[in-house]
Amino acid sequence: MKLVRFVVSGEERPLWGVLEGDSIRVTDGLGGDFTGDRFPLAKVSLKAPAEAPKIVCVGKNYVDPAKPTPADELPKEPGLFLKAANALADPEQSLPYPSFTKELAFEGELAVVIGRTMKKVRESDALDYVLGYSCAIDITAKDCQKTDLQWVRAKSADCFCPLGPWIETDLSPQNVMLRTRINGEVRQESSTAHMIFPVAFILSYISSFMTLLSGDVVLTGTPKGAGPLQRGDVIEVSIEGIGTLKTPVV
Amino acid sequence: MKLVRFVVSGEERPLWGVLEGDSIRVTDGLGGDFTGDRFPLAKVSLKAPAEAPKIVCVGKNYVDPAKPTPADELPKEPGLFLKAANALADPEQSLPYPSFTKELAFEGELAVVIGRTMKKVRESDALDYVLGYSCAIDITAKDCQKTDLQWVRAKSADCFCPLGPWIETDLSPQNVMLRTRINGEVRQESSTAHMIFPVAFILSYISSFMTLLSGDVVLTGTPKGAGPLQRGDVIEVSIEGIGTLKTPVV
Repeated sequence: MKLVRFVVSGEERPLWGVLEGDSIRVTDGLGGDFTGDRFPLAKVSLKAPAEAPKIVCVGKNYVDPAKPTPADELPKEPGLFLKAANALADPEQSLPYPSFTKELAFEGELAVVIGRTMKKVRESDALDYVLGYSCAIDITAKDCQKTDLQWVRAKSADCFCPLGPWIETDLSPQNVMLRTRINGEVRQESSTAHMIFPVAFILSYISSFMTLLSGDVVLTGTPKGAGPLQRGDVIEVSIEGIGTLKTPVV
Repeated sequence: MKLVRFVVSGEERPLWGVLEGDSIRVTDGLGGDFTGDRFPLAKVSLKAPAEAPKIVCVGKNYVDPAKPTPADELPKEPGLFLKAANALADPEQSLPYPSFTKELAFEGELAVVIGRTMKKVRESDALDYVLGYSCAIDITAKDCQKTDLQWVRAKSADCFCPLGPWIETDLSPQNVMLRTRINGEVRQESSTAHMIFPVAFILSYISSFMTLLSGDVVLTGTPKGAGPLQRGDVIEVSIEGIGTLKTPVV
């Protein structure tokens, strides 16, 4: 099931709904009852499918099967950082290249949307707390990452976390292909099977010290091939079974 | 005016109100009309006066007037980090010493609560966007700060951001005394006049790349004297004109 957050032309308030073919059946909030309204997908504007969440992200989390990492160089636990909710951007929303950086970069990622309060949950139970999955782009100002105290400007500037196009609730997260294209050319291509820490482990680890709430978002790291962005580039992150998230850089 | 968030015994839903002497006049949400209800302060439990905000924090931001820092060693711009909203803790709420750290530490700070959406605002206008001020304790796991990729476990574990006891809307933020006591003994004592970057500058700087929303919280750094915590310690942060925030470590 694809859970869609969207606005109808001329309206301001985002609605939630379920995608059925080319149309959206409106629900009373996320996961609520059907209201009876229905809109054609082509006639609405999609919104990032999360409202004011916290966004917890994993740093290095993919191996390159062509170049196996020696076991003693693998991280022992997930390296985490945060993105603030102001960084969320909608599908198709333009990313203005900010004046404070000269090194904007993209990283395509599988995003996990949490379904209910999650605190000290074991790895074996962790996926029961997942609402679904989406595509994310972890936009980074690489130069600020080197100069700033922590990765705030580098990771949490406005529009630095495009998310969408929707939440897919039926997905086996460790065996899908992730591809990032820049201007149509494939730059990242990996199966989520190559994650160092699988989704369930990441969620269990985070929940051991941070309570995750319904609607929170976890980004699960990016495979090799992440790279620089230029004004005019179009980023597309496609994840098998979910769809494609598209962000133009302006 | 003191804006109070609280729960009445036996109820679950937090209410907002205005403190008048020893009683709270309930309002219809934060800044709403009076509902007519009134509760004695002594009969309610205070809650952190912010709901699901983002929390942006400044690192080194105080000089020691007894030991002036050479101008070329002062930071050129605020060093920022984030705390996630799960870190919020209520006044008087116990802070469990987490098992993942052996170096828990306190930092008493002036907290700024944002009143309305703030994006690319000049320093001269920045204080117009402030709802008010509160006391915060920036709890840190110092060992994780050294070992982890970014300061997530170190700064954003559950209960790592006690906030309160309320929001004071009438305060001149650059000329009040901040004192942190551990078990009654003063450990930090400084005027906010000794901030390197004043509140207005910090808010303007953050808003230049991150949109701040109503209810967001900005922590403004800590003066000298921050230090380690032991189980059984009681932390009290007092800010002139606001009040005292108290957190026992258990």
